Amino acid sequence: MQFVQENKGFKIFIDGKEIIHHTEENPCIYAGIGKATYEMFRGNFKVSDSVCEKMALKDFDVEDAQNGKIVTFSRNKLNPLKVLFTEEDGRHVIKFIENADSLNRIWLRLKAQKEEHIYGCGEQFSHFDLRGKNFPLWTSEQGVGRNKNTYITFMADSIDQAGGDYYTTFFPAPTFVSTRKYYCHVDNTAYMDFDFKNEDYHELQIWDIPEKIIFETGESYIELVEKVTELLGRQPELPEWVYDGVVIGVQGGTETCVKKLNNAVEKGLKVSGIWAQDWQGERYTSFGKRLMWNWQWDSKLYPGLDEEIKTLNARGVKFLGYINPYVAIEGNLYKEASENGYLAKDAEGKDYLVEFGEFYAGVVDFTNPKAFEWYKGVIKKYLIDFGLSGWMADFGEYLPTDLYLYNGVSAEIMHNEWPAIWARVNKEAIEESGKTDQVTYFMRAGATGSQKNCAMMWAGDQNVDWSMDDGLASVIPAALSLSMIGCGIHHSDIGGYTTLFGMKRTKELFMRWAEMGAFTPFMRTHEGNRPLDNWQFDSDDETLLHFAKMSRVYTTLAPYIKAAVKENSEKGIPVQRPLFMHYENDERSYGIQYEYLFGRDILVAPVYEEGKATWKAYLPEDEWVHLWTGEEYKGGDVEVEAPIGFPPVFYRKNSSYVELFGKVLEV
Amino acid sequence: MQFVQENKGFKIFIDGKEIIHHTEENPCIYAGIGKATYEMFRGNFKVSDSVCEKMALKDFDVEDAQNGKIVTFSRNKLNPLKVLFTEEDGRHVIKFIENADSLNRIWLRLKAQKEEHIYGCGEQFSHFDLRGKNFPLWTSEQGVGRNKNTYITFMADSIDQAGGDYYTTFFPAPTFVSTRKYYCHVDNTAYMDFDFKNEDYHELQIWDIPEKIIFETGESYIELVEKVTELLGRQPELPEWVYDGVVIGVQGGTETCVKKLNNAVEKGLKVSGIWAQDWQGERYTSFGKRLMWNWQWDSKLYPGLDEEIKTLNARGVKFLGYINPYVAIEGNLYKEASENGYLAKDAEGKDYLVEFGEFYAGVVDFTNPKAFEWYKGVIKKYLIDFGLSGWMADFGEYLPTDLYLYNGVSAEIMHNEWPAIWARVNKEAIEESGKTDQVTYFMRAGATGSQKNCAMMWAGDQNVDWSMDDGLASVIPAALSLSMIGCGIHHSDIGGYTTLFGMKRTKELFMRWAEMGAFTPFMRTHEGNRPLDNWQFDSDDETLLHFAKMSRVYTTLAPYIKAAVKENSEKGIPVQRPLFMHYENDERSYGIQYEYLFGRDILVAPVYEEGKATWKAYLPEDEWVHLWTGEEYKGGDVEVEAPIGFPPVFYRKNSSYVELFGKVLEV
Repeated sequence: MQFVQENKGFKIFIDGKEIIHHTEENPCIYAGIGKATYEMFRGNFKVSDSVCEKMALKDFDVEDAQNGKIVTFSRNKLNPLKVLFTEEDGRHVIKFIENADSLNRIWLRLKAQKEEHIYGCGEQFSHFDLRGKNFPLWTSEQGVGRNKNTYITFMADSIDQAGGDYYTTFFPAPTFVSTRKYYCHVDNTAYMDFDFKNEDYHELQIWDIPEKIIFETGESYIELVEKVTELLGRQPELPEWVYDGVVIGVQGGTETCVKKLNNAVEKGLKVSGIWAQDWQGERYTSFGKRLMWNWQWDSKLYPGLDEEIKTLNARGVKFLGYINPYVAIEGNLYKEASENGYLAKDAEGKDYLVEFGEFYAGVVDFTNPKAFEWYKGVIKKYLIDFGLSGWMADFGEYLPTDLYLYNGVSAEIMHNEWPAIWARVNKEAIEESGKTDQVTYFMRAGATGSQKNCAMMWAGDQNVDWSMDDGLASVIPAALSLSMIGCGIHHSDIGGYTTLFGMKRTKELFMRWAEMGAFTPFMRTHEGNRPLDNWQFDSDDETLLHFAKMSRVYTTLAPYIKAAVKENSEKGIPVQRPLFMHYENDERSYGIQYEYLFGRDILVAPVYEEGKATWKAYLPEDEWVHLWTGEEYKGGDVEVEAPIGFPPVFYRKNSSYVELFGKVLEV
Repeated sequence: MQFVQENKGFKIFIDGKEIIHHTEENPCIYAGIGKATYEMFRGNFKVSDSVCEKMALKDFDVEDAQNGKIVTFSRNKLNPLKVLFTEEDGRHVIKFIENADSLNRIWLRLKAQKEEHIYGCGEQFSHFDLRGKNFPLWTSEQGVGRNKNTYITFMADSIDQAGGDYYTTFFPAPTFVSTRKYYCHVDNTAYMDFDFKNEDYHELQIWDIPEKIIFETGESYIELVEKVTELLGRQPELPEWVYDGVVIGVQGGTETCVKKLNNAVEKGLKVSGIWAQDWQGERYTSFGKRLMWNWQWDSKLYPGLDEEIKTLNARGVKFLGYINPYVAIEGNLYKEASENGYLAKDAEGKDYLVEFGEFYAGVVDFTNPKAFEWYKGVIKKYLIDFGLSGWMADFGEYLPTDLYLYNGVSAEIMHNEWPAIWARVNKEAIEESGKTDQVTYFMRAGATGSQKNCAMMWAGDQNVDWSMDDGLASVIPAALSLSMIGCGIHHSDIGGYTTLFGMKRTKELFMRWAEMGAFTPFMRTHEGNRPLDNWQFDSDDETLLHFAKMSRVYTTLAPYIKAAVKENSEKGIPVQRPLFMHYENDERSYGIQYEYLFGRDILVAPVYEEGKATWKAYLPEDEWVHLWTGEEYKGGDVEVEAPIGFPPVFYRKNSSYVELFGKVLEV
């Protein structure tokens, strides 16, 4: 880190890149005082801030420190903010070491360049390149529709305040990668808003005084994601059984599930597991089918499941369930947690109950070490020991800001961290059962810490439609933005989930989504919240046969996928990668958010529009082979036949997997 | 004004009422620096502010002044802001006499009481009592739908960014009346946002340093509106001919208009005038029928109109037209204005052209005295001398913020004032023609200054529907909020105007609107932007006969209405009044925004819902007589028969007009 004083200001360089420029006219830091308001309705938040003070900290004093410089910013001696610019473990760090007590907001300006692109900030469904917009970072429901100009968003907003917007996400993160080849990570969990709209600077607004902000540069994007994951942690490999086929999301009882399995296997579907979210019971609300939220086998709905799991396992089929960090008030787990004081409290010291849509649940207070251990015990005993090989670890993004936690920290600060803590509960439960290589889980909510604590992400609740901001297409930027910050294993509900306001999943949508799913590290279906309204994988033979083919594409590619997953766990190089990660001299690749590299050698350009028989793709300069026809391309804009069953996929002619790729034609 | 220093702060009282309380912990004033962004699309604005500094000016020094105190606010000597608290012409005034140059934002906190209500701030369509919300004050299109939860608003937003919100209005004003019995007026035209959400204070945010803020107290609301209009001016009386009946909004040429008139008169309609907005030509766009915007008689569309006007006048029927402050580029007026340099300029010094929906027009630059005179001349020559007895003086709220004006003042500052300047052009043109008692005009856009420069307001472009925020009902709070700030003559397009997204005016809506119109100072119809989609006053005999009856109700009441209009012009006591203006001890009356007093002795509770045959009204304690049945009420909640033709109207038993009111039964 180089500190250069000049005129009446200074510049800070990391490895030769200017990241901060402070002058009296354009100060790099503003500090102030705000009071936030968070209104939550079922995980959808309206957040606003009443800023009663914001001061440009124009004045500064510099002192030498042991390894760097201490700069005390202030304004006419007001609001002193002491900052250490230093290096720590080989990283460039801005440490906030002292400040006026009253301050609780900072706005830090980083130097920007006009042609710079920015990626990351968690899971972003609408924009992969973040330049030109601001991104509030607050974990929440992702929204239904996520575009104020669509009818679905309007309906969701009108009825449930649930429409969302371009930035709403289950997994926001204060971590980004710049095309100036550095990453920046803010070590804090408060509400933030990163504004990349300005030509000359990025403004990081933080509703707290963070401990530190970390930077590293890299020679390449590969090096940068390696460094990000060196800092934040890496995901483990997936259990071997995952590569045996798809996990079918079915429900309705032991017999129903097995019948669906048998029928599908008979038609050639490669099945690695059954995922039955209602294994612990169900309830019906106006939203559709919901679960019981008392995390134990429902032996009435699933008679003989304990034995059936053994039979299934012997057939090479795993059984997966579902859990989330809440306990419904009707259940014995709620009673146990409540009696032991394991639940978060309201202002009066009573259990805080969250309304989840016509039913209530308590919030297990993971800041209480006993509650944390207890919930791990629930997972170990009722899920792992029962025989589950995995589960959806749902939710994490709802922590209300007006509840009281055991550790005494404000829920405003804990809110964004909650998903990572919830991930850790799952991770440790599996580790302590000694089953990390056999049992997995997938989450939609995330935070800093998910990198090392969450085995894999799933994209949450897409609409069962073709909308850009909340349908099939939106899953691609979601995977890519996460890939830049160290979460390299991503998948989505094949077919989408949210079935409301007249939406119904069509056969074509299911098939196109399955075609994309075959080129992700994990294939899993979901019936959606209103299963009867949706086209399912077994709704007719044509669909099932098509899906069976896609499952075989996936199992055929398994050795290649496995190697990519291994690379992710060892180096943090994601399985799904943006094109520029390997083609950084290709200007156009920086703007592409609906194609991806699947590992090093496959390029996938999913068909995300209805009624298409051909598809236009962009290929960076290389030697590409079209998977289905063998036609060769050198790069540029290409148009290929893309009827159902033949998703636009290309592989590198010089790949060491060429022979394997060829086998896909035989499925 | 009483200035009381105590502890480390001070309090300011006006006539014994505490209006300011300054302490170090809760300073009364914040100052800062912001840079606003205004995006305009056809009069709909997205306004945002980037505040780079906001400081609580905690420190203060007090000096005695000749007539008051000078307080210099600052923060550690930064951002000094010198304020004089004084009296001027018997009013309490806060004068901003000196400030740091860079400052361009202030936030002033006035003392509030929990149970206080606030009224005014211009023409507010959604909320009469402003407490509990903030109100951005920026003149613009009012919006189509004005409620983000309605389908019409969604459609308007999606297609044209035109949906609006609860606060969007053609006529915002930095003037309000508190139930603590004072008024407050900010003497400035910048963007403001008055926030009445807080229990303890009102926060006036002003994007400029105003010259002064004026307060007066009163013993009653009558006294307060008298004082407001003493300060801001009063409207003249209306020409006598107005009381002869309704002004029918018709178009399509001389013969068509006269035919419609004859047919209506034959059916008993009392007609005072024909209002033909297309007298100067028409054009068709995707929005519907639009006008030519070159303000001279179109003798092709209106052959013989010059002579016909004389014939009509002899029959006791006036002819009214239309004008606005823009000149379409196709016309000779544009050419003349452009050649003389009378148009506002863009950054390159060329005529600034505004897109008005598939056509363009120049903006007459009224800050250029020659342009101002020239446009008055246009009105005198082409409108008044031609024989028009009145016109809609449309628009005024579109002034783009990126144009350049002759007077060198930023368009950001001139924007809000524009409607008042446009009003003055009309007023002076009529005055100079010596026809103030014969010719009138009506405007939708307004500002401080409209009180004395605009003869009467009309409510703008309601939807042809029953929606609360943009339909029939919305006109009532609009009239009442304006009534509190000195614009006491108000009316609306009978039947509404905006006909889009499947809306069609129904027969019932037209009839209910006409019933309300009979109890306003001016009755006028509008065909709407898509006349063929709408039910019109002459669409069938039943409607015409009903409308004829309502016109006779109006003409029967004329002496009473005239007296109320006179009171408005002499004292500023509005024609339509909120109930609490005369029943200030009635707690409930402060929350009533869909009933009004029409003059002192009539209470109107318009039916604003579809399919009603009875109606519930609230009457303050008095002796009330139901207009149609003679049934007497003492006050409280009442329910009356209210079939079509019998709007819920009550009069005071002790009124000196009882005999006149009785005659209404004979119409």
